[in-house]
Amino acid sequence: MRRTQRAVVLLSGGLDSATCLAVALKEGYAATALSFAYGQRARSELDAAGRVAAALGVRDRRIIRLDPGAFAGSALTGAMAVPRGGETEGIPVTYVPARNTVFLAYGLAVAESLAADAVLIGANSVDYSGYPDCRPEYIAAFQKMADLATRRGVEGDPIAIRAPLQDLGKAEIIRLGISLGVDYSLTVSCYDPDAEGRACGACASCRLRRDGFLAQGLPDPTRYAAGAFPGE
Amino acid sequence: MRRTQRAVVLLSGGLDSATCLAVALKEGYAATALSFAYGQRARSELDAAGRVAAALGVRDRRIIRLDPGAFAGSALTGAMAVPRGGETEGIPVTYVPARNTVFLAYGLAVAESLAADAVLIGANSVDYSGYPDCRPEYIAAFQKMADLATRRGVEGDPIAIRAPLQDLGKAEIIRLGISLGVDYSLTVSCYDPDAEGRACGACASCRLRRDGFLAQGLPDPTRYAAGAFPGE
Repeated sequence: MRRTQRAVVLLSGGLDSATCLAVALKEGYAATALSFAYGQRARSELDAAGRVAAALGVRDRRIIRLDPGAFAGSALTGAMAVPRGGETEGIPVTYVPARNTVFLAYGLAVAESLAADAVLIGANSVDYSGYPDCRPEYIAAFQKMADLATRRGVEGDPIAIRAPLQDLGKAEIIRLGISLGVDYSLTVSCYDPDAEGRACGACASCRLRRDGFLAQGLPDPTRYAAGAFPGE
Repeated sequence: MRRTQRAVVLLSGGLDSATCLAVALKEGYAATALSFAYGQRARSELDAAGRVAAALGVRDRRIIRLDPGAFAGSALTGAMAVPRGGETEGIPVTYVPARNTVFLAYGLAVAESLAADAVLIGANSVDYSGYPDCRPEYIAAFQKMADLATRRGVEGDPIAIRAPLQDLGKAEIIRLGISLGVDYSLTVSCYDPDAEGRACGACASCRLRRDGFLAQGLPDPTRYAAGAFPGE
């Protein structure tokens, strides 16, 4: 019998990573959910990650504390305001320097330590391609680097770096997640939620998420802050 | 006039990284010395890094605290004993999973935040090639990944990932460092120093270092623990 494969799944507590975790479980991986605590505005994401992992029955959950001095120059970690409104041209101010590279590097370290077979990340760039470190060519380049970096790679049993959502748009991700039993009411996507973790409804991430539910004709279970949609 | 280039230099406090920092300064970079605090045995390395940076006149020194849970399964971070004796075949037990990948990922993040031009690492693999993440092909693959990962890469002004010592043997590194004024008595290379930071003289790192000084016919300024060389 083929042994159970183990995966380290990066879990922010947002919509994409929750779906990615459900995909990993569906594929039969024994999953370790890996979250990062850093100077992000969306600390409620960590609580969401815990709820998502519990709801999907994942008991091996790890949190890596990142030095808050490591990331700067982004609206997601600093004093800069998160813009209200949809996507902009080019790379947004919510870009965090080398964030996915740090996350995947830790994922690789944890995977090698645990003798896991894969690192999964919810990165996708179909509906929005503004973040360079969410693109398929980036993931492929990380894989090549990881194969050269690790004992496992050198010894011919490389750790797979996978982004199983990378070819899906937001609406497709939501449809897939619902088919896999993801409870999206547990997830937080907002870049700038209020103290109770309720979404602003106005940032680019809220808009992408909302459009995804609308495109599926599905009720949006997101908890929005009061007055998020004054016209409705 | 060409503006001063800025480099983030990874500084462990060992012989290689001290030399790498001196090379960066010689090349005219304004340097930020970046060290990592984690569950390593050689905590005295961090003190050494501070002394090295001060001696070379580098005032911008940063320490990133790494979650000690991130690395496991290595003699350098766990309860496993550091072997006494020279190099072994294959990858040694002192290999730390994906360590240089995590270090360079942080270096890249800090460099992009500071608008620096390069990340320098003292990696070299001429005298000893047992660590996969010290080889030139690894550094080249990290560069390609970084070019795709970052705003700077996408916008056509990539951050250079450089390992300026990569073609040098240990004796050549020492000769270069001495020519640049590096005080090697300030550095710590030992995998398992005593509480006062004195080297064991017996681990693979001590042996490589000692052989390097002997090959140059230079006095070895390393502070060794009492009884390190019982036959001498």
